[in-house]
Amino acid sequence: MTNQVALRESARPVPATAVATTVVETDVVVVGGGGAGLPTALFSRWLGDDVVLLEKAPELGGTAKKAAFWYWVPNNVPMRQKGIEDRYEDYLHYVARLSQPSRYDPTSATAGLSEWEESMARAIYESASPAAELLQERKALVYRHCPDVPDYWSQLPEDKAPYGRVLVPADARESMSDGGECAVRDMSAAADRDGVDVRTGHRVQRLVTDGDRVVGVEATSAAGERVRVLARKGVVFATGGFTHDDELRGNHLGVPAYRGCAAATNEGDFVRISTGVGAQLGNMNYAWMCPVPLERSGRPDLVGMFSVAGDSTVFVNRHGRRVVNEKTPYNELAQTFFAWDGASGTYPNLVLVQIWDQRAQDASASDEYGRLIVPPGSDDSHVIKGETLKELGARIEERLAGQAARTGGFMLADDFAANLPGTIDRFNGFARAGVDEDFHRGETAIELVFNGPVPEEPGRANPTMWPISETGPYYAALVTGGTLDTKGGPRTDPDGRVLDDQGTPVPGLYGVGNCVASASGRAYWAGGATLGPIIAFAHRAAGAVHADAQSQTH
Amino acid sequence: MTNQVALRESARPVPATAVATTVVETDVVVVGGGGAGLPTALFSRWLGDDVVLLEKAPELGGTAKKAAFWYWVPNNVPMRQKGIEDRYEDYLHYVARLSQPSRYDPTSATAGLSEWEESMARAIYESASPAAELLQERKALVYRHCPDVPDYWSQLPEDKAPYGRVLVPADARESMSDGGECAVRDMSAAADRDGVDVRTGHRVQRLVTDGDRVVGVEATSAAGERVRVLARKGVVFATGGFTHDDELRGNHLGVPAYRGCAAATNEGDFVRISTGVGAQLGNMNYAWMCPVPLERSGRPDLVGMFSVAGDSTVFVNRHGRRVVNEKTPYNELAQTFFAWDGASGTYPNLVLVQIWDQRAQDASASDEYGRLIVPPGSDDSHVIKGETLKELGARIEERLAGQAARTGGFMLADDFAANLPGTIDRFNGFARAGVDEDFHRGETAIELVFNGPVPEEPGRANPTMWPISETGPYYAALVTGGTLDTKGGPRTDPDGRVLDDQGTPVPGLYGVGNCVASASGRAYWAGGATLGPIIAFAHRAAGAVHADAQSQTH
Repeated sequence: MTNQVALRESARPVPATAVATTVVETDVVVVGGGGAGLPTALFSRWLGDDVVLLEKAPELGGTAKKAAFWYWVPNNVPMRQKGIEDRYEDYLHYVARLSQPSRYDPTSATAGLSEWEESMARAIYESASPAAELLQERKALVYRHCPDVPDYWSQLPEDKAPYGRVLVPADARESMSDGGECAVRDMSAAADRDGVDVRTGHRVQRLVTDGDRVVGVEATSAAGERVRVLARKGVVFATGGFTHDDELRGNHLGVPAYRGCAAATNEGDFVRISTGVGAQLGNMNYAWMCPVPLERSGRPDLVGMFSVAGDSTVFVNRHGRRVVNEKTPYNELAQTFFAWDGASGTYPNLVLVQIWDQRAQDASASDEYGRLIVPPGSDDSHVIKGETLKELGARIEERLAGQAARTGGFMLADDFAANLPGTIDRFNGFARAGVDEDFHRGETAIELVFNGPVPEEPGRANPTMWPISETGPYYAALVTGGTLDTKGGPRTDPDGRVLDDQGTPVPGLYGVGNCVASASGRAYWAGGATLGPIIAFAHRAAGAVHADAQSQTH
Repeated sequence: MTNQVALRESARPVPATAVATTVVETDVVVVGGGGAGLPTALFSRWLGDDVVLLEKAPELGGTAKKAAFWYWVPNNVPMRQKGIEDRYEDYLHYVARLSQPSRYDPTSATAGLSEWEESMARAIYESASPAAELLQERKALVYRHCPDVPDYWSQLPEDKAPYGRVLVPADARESMSDGGECAVRDMSAAADRDGVDVRTGHRVQRLVTDGDRVVGVEATSAAGERVRVLARKGVVFATGGFTHDDELRGNHLGVPAYRGCAAATNEGDFVRISTGVGAQLGNMNYAWMCPVPLERSGRPDLVGMFSVAGDSTVFVNRHGRRVVNEKTPYNELAQTFFAWDGASGTYPNLVLVQIWDQRAQDASASDEYGRLIVPPGSDDSHVIKGETLKELGARIEERLAGQAARTGGFMLADDFAANLPGTIDRFNGFARAGVDEDFHRGETAIELVFNGPVPEEPGRANPTMWPISETGPYYAALVTGGTLDTKGGPRTDPDGRVLDDQGTPVPGLYGVGNCVASASGRAYWAGGATLGPIIAFAHRAAGAVHADAQSQTH
């Protein structure tokens, strides 16, 4: 047994006639055992199909295991039970407005989306709730409803159901941060209970084809064993995105994002494996984004910064000035780092510095949601300390110098120290008044959800702000933007069938989750906008594999 | 004979054993007869290879025919003759600093570029000049040197040879705007003279393969004839980018750019055709960008706005405020439109409005370089007129309403009319002083080159600015950002060999120009940074096809 992952080999498909060492045969091969693969395997199994699940890592869970596992389910059963209306047209307008803002057209039947985009959006609306109910019914994923959690853009007029679309695993803690552990544990147990043949430590290298049809995969184990698994009905990839492949990120993402917190095995395998059978790639330019501590990017234990905790804290740029509402939801906050300045030919905000005081350190430290203000005893290798702002600035400069080779030599500007006290003064004034005149911090509902633990201050108007102390010690961390995971890959139809350049399915090949093209464009509609749709598509793909095989037989 | 282009069919490769209607055999098939295909065909022919050139359009020229055809040739012969030093290390630092600003590292041997990127940059440095010289020697493309044209970033300390790298066709007019006509005419004549078998009206649909090897292509004519052209030595694609494919632009480019001025046949054919043989895609996220008049985007006669002409003119946003130096070189100016505002979830500058007065209309009208101030008698369908600023604003609003379905309903803000006079006052003050305190207009060398015709004003400090008149009539146009052409596609080695997922060449398959991955990342180093490298790679690919076939034989 090994803890290693097998090396990557050539992804070119091999014909079924080629020799393999070990041959296994089943109905459905599911590749990847995370938030997409586990439900796909379960849904397939519950349809009566034999399933082999191949996972590259030594254990199941993938990125989902590190996640809070909120799942966004439009028009879900608890909403309907509570009388919260969530009509398809309203949902579609919300989705279209955010996913394709330069094409949104409320007067069109598809709200400006392409036919494919609208069909994918419809699939989510129609199938996320039945999928969630089935998982609950089979005790594979029991949920609790979060009526008080708003969408990330609940303030938009297009959001007609701003509260109620989020579910979480029933026994997640109150802060909901450990939902992934719960969900992976319960879905894994269900897979074991219901007879899914789970094989960890198996890296799928390539497809096995018979003419135009995909009939299986070849995998290698870390020990070097080569295994061919033939699929009588179909192969479903659920292998995650390409967060941990620098070449794919650099050649596809619209911004030079750093590595984020996807499972270390998310290396874009399906992008490579699928091109050999002519798959059409979609949505390669966008990712689920989040801020990350620059110095920890690339480490497998990284957790993206989903919540900027604290009230007496600000982000400042290399000039010591605020440039953003620090409580902006993570996907949008992460864009800030990649604003391009065409006059200087630089990313002027590539690194921002979070600064906080002792009050925030004492009251807002937390090891949840990737917060950078961490409790004593935690890994604080990203934390910079200074007794005075001047000393803090010097320490920041040292840390930046240590990162120069991965930031294009990003350093503080000469006016950082001069500007910083004025920036803090101005913020402190806003904090006292409760109104951030520059960036409107704390004015939307979701910001309060992600505010993190802050001291009780009876009567204050804005819980997201408090004046930063005039005396040290001070703390800081270097922050940039990364991919929670990417959301591009082979395009599928709404039932998970991988499509070729003409939109025709590649027979026998399916995909679900972050390894295939998301129709969300650039948007992150709400917490759980990853996993809710993934469960919907897992349900649909399992059904399509089953039905396609039946229609072939008859 | 037909003027139409054949419809697109499935791009899946076919084995050589499959039947075809007409079969032609040659040494080298070149697909595409524009700025990359023509020199590739010539270089191949001059090595003694038989060449069939297949062009989809009814005539040769592609995007190059519409271009000024500057070509950027580092360390070129006239530079050396004039004693202008252009060392490889200096060139590399300039290229790396701009192409990968977040990875630029002057202390590394590759200046922070990947091994592949450095090898491609080196190929340009080593081969652009020999290629230009050979084209000149064979009278296929005679150049004149432009010692007074600066690079687009000549102001950077990394640019050690800021002047002298640009060549243009020798008999282009003084303004250099018609270089493409000259170059296509002369290279076409040379192809005819030297026996290249040119076949226009042939759309290549797919590859013909023999096992792993590409041995030819299948094309269809607009009349529906199917022709197979077998290549004894190799197939070189030079089919341009994916400017005119909305799906590919939307699913790959980092910003929602509009269609720009590439030839209408640039529909991403090679992206589709190459994926079926497992090609690895590179640099799919970036494009050669330029501003375009919104209302003309998508028209085949569009010319990108390479020069914002005039002094008494500004760009304003929907609030009636300036947001950019209007004379910024086009690639960077075009980025302005796609700045994302994460607070509102919008592209607030998706459309900017160029405004000018009668003085600019009288003195700066021109039909060159895509300028929007056009002479009487030209197509002025993009021009909006108003006797007063108030009337102009009302007309602008009408025009924007007409474009709402393709802009996400982009309209002027309520404060546009109130802010505009103040914006003009402020600009006029800058114009009188000769210093733009907000955006530094006219402070770099390249801005003066692209300033366009402006009235003689003896003694003024800044030829790019003049106060806008206090009385009408006024003129305006809606401006957004588009792709001159894209610069992503299958990745090749520095000799044009298309690479698979492991970086191994796909035998028999080559690519040159905007249809393959550029190593320039996001950068537009200088005028001619498209065509100079293209000529270098055309030379190298022709050599590689020839040499690879020889090494196979022996």
